[in-house]
Amino acid sequence: ALNQSKGLGKMHSLMLRCCRLIGSANFLTRLAQSTPVAVSNSNYNKRLLTYASGVAMTTDRYGGVMLDLSAVNEGTDEDLVMEHIRDAVSNSLTVAPAAWVRVPLHLSSLTTHLAVDGFRYHHAEGYYATLVKWLRPGRPSKVPRFGTHQLGVAGLLIDDESLLCVREHRLPPKQGAQTKKPHQSPWKLPGGVADLGEEIGDAAVREVAEETGIAARFESVLAFRHHHWHPMAFNRSDFYVLCRLSLDGQRRGELKPCPDEISKVDWLTVSQLDALPTEEVAPILRASLPLIRLGLRNGFKTVDMQRFALHSLYTAKRVSLYHRPLLGEVE
Amino acid sequence: ALNQSKGLGKMHSLMLRCCRLIGSANFLTRLAQSTPVAVSNSNYNKRLLTYASGVAMTTDRYGGVMLDLSAVNEGTDEDLVMEHIRDAVSNSLTVAPAAWVRVPLHLSSLTTHLAVDGFRYHHAEGYYATLVKWLRPGRPSKVPRFGTHQLGVAGLLIDDESLLCVREHRLPPKQGAQTKKPHQSPWKLPGGVADLGEEIGDAAVREVAEETGIAARFESVLAFRHHHWHPMAFNRSDFYVLCRLSLDGQRRGELKPCPDEISKVDWLTVSQLDALPTEEVAPILRASLPLIRLGLRNGFKTVDMQRFALHSLYTAKRVSLYHRPLLGEVE
Repeated sequence: ALNQSKGLGKMHSLMLRCCRLIGSANFLTRLAQSTPVAVSNSNYNKRLLTYASGVAMTTDRYGGVMLDLSAVNEGTDEDLVMEHIRDAVSNSLTVAPAAWVRVPLHLSSLTTHLAVDGFRYHHAEGYYATLVKWLRPGRPSKVPRFGTHQLGVAGLLIDDESLLCVREHRLPPKQGAQTKKPHQSPWKLPGGVADLGEEIGDAAVREVAEETGIAARFESVLAFRHHHWHPMAFNRSDFYVLCRLSLDGQRRGELKPCPDEISKVDWLTVSQLDALPTEEVAPILRASLPLIRLGLRNGFKTVDMQRFALHSLYTAKRVSLYHRPLLGEVE
Repeated sequence: ALNQSKGLGKMHSLMLRCCRLIGSANFLTRLAQSTPVAVSNSNYNKRLLTYASGVAMTTDRYGGVMLDLSAVNEGTDEDLVMEHIRDAVSNSLTVAPAAWVRVPLHLSSLTTHLAVDGFRYHHAEGYYATLVKWLRPGRPSKVPRFGTHQLGVAGLLIDDESLLCVREHRLPPKQGAQTKKPHQSPWKLPGGVADLGEEIGDAAVREVAEETGIAARFESVLAFRHHHWHPMAFNRSDFYVLCRLSLDGQRRGELKPCPDEISKVDWLTVSQLDALPTEEVAPILRASLPLIRLGLRNGFKTVDMQRFALHSLYTAKRVSLYHRPLLGEVE
């Protein structure tokens, strides 16, 4: 875990700067004892120093200390790793509101030691877990939770006053089960969970194609639902965005229900859906029918939210702002 | 970890049912060898059986096998725990698309063994990590990611054509830093991250009160922004919902900026904000000015999204649907 190729010449002045940042008079001495082997620069989120054990230290934009263990070799003495973690945290105490440790899966036995030191899981995915410790015991933690929401989308495709609707397969009821649940879901709009990084409209178009075989185009957002403690979102919250799609001048095309997921696809009018028993129509579709009827009567331009493209301060990816059209505005 | 108080009388018939569910002819014999000590009932998400090691098995609504280690005592032989996990997974292979293991923090050394068996982190928070293994190698995983989004809110409070705006403290620039960043943020609307389970309007009202000292009331949603790979959301996605608030007939009241976070609070007109240099106004506020001007000119009822209360299939908590008012509809 030696990173000596990276700017060792700048090490002394940067370690001095690092000492100022961390605010401890003894820090340089203690660093020497702790044998940091490489220092790059002191910008936020950049490498500050790497200990001999491979523990790499950076700071975040709030002055928090971030320790990454991905360069720690398997088999490295766990006591040494913990010594370096404790050294970095204790030297950051005066300025850092929180300490973070990113632990690769193959070193997860270290998390037991971190737990004893007061670290708790903040989040984890794939090969990494990130633990956090709030360093100001007298004051409430300002560490935000990780990922409180998931994003679901639905595609409303209307042709000749009929809505493209689907029913999903359900697991068969177990033998002896007290309630005889049907083998398929109520009628609903095609839709599903958006992938990480996927645009809302793209996700709705993809789900409609996957579930029904119909190619459509994103037009607008009509509504969004906010549901907390959602069991299908691992008890986090669920955003569900209702998108209006169009056939883009094409004809309906052949219905090709996805065999894995979908038991039925059909075109149904609002009146047909209204006439079905409660349990035959998904509650969110039922709740959207007044809005859909209003759109059919007065034109969807009266209820649409349009997408406006924005620039991001942080990434080159597109950012979207959704609100009413600005047609009424005269600049 | 003996749960013998819970319905052991029903154990035999339920184990038979469990065998049907899991679809293995040898399962009853193997269960006996694996020494399950308690069985309750076979509803989804209910306890199915507990091994002598404390490994507790349930199934989810997709037939996945869920193993909870929270009843495993510290110091239990790790080989025995892993044997019971492997037993449960191998007996579920024909029907379960995925296997889940929930590991308490103090037993996290077990995650190293789980990793060798092909488990990866799905999510973690506080005292627990949940690992998952997709059991159908030839087919793409259908396991959804955990928490792809965080929710931010902003409160737009307008009085006498002026908007309540704030500037936040920023960390002072480091000595020798190449860019001289200002000590405060651009002008923005008061707002912040919503708590888990918090309603959008409640979060906006809370943030306005915390940052400015002004008591306000939620009126409507005006817009929402969708930003992927957001650095302040741990590189997940960010939803930012712009809420219109009102003083509810009260007078403005005294401005009391939160000393920890806010450097300035003031009332600014759209024209004043328009006249400021680019870097003095937050991009999302700048991008919202045309909509706000339209609302001021034509009335915000022309651009509002209203909140409609829904029932949930899953919880007793309120669920909200946001879309255009239905005033135009005649039933």
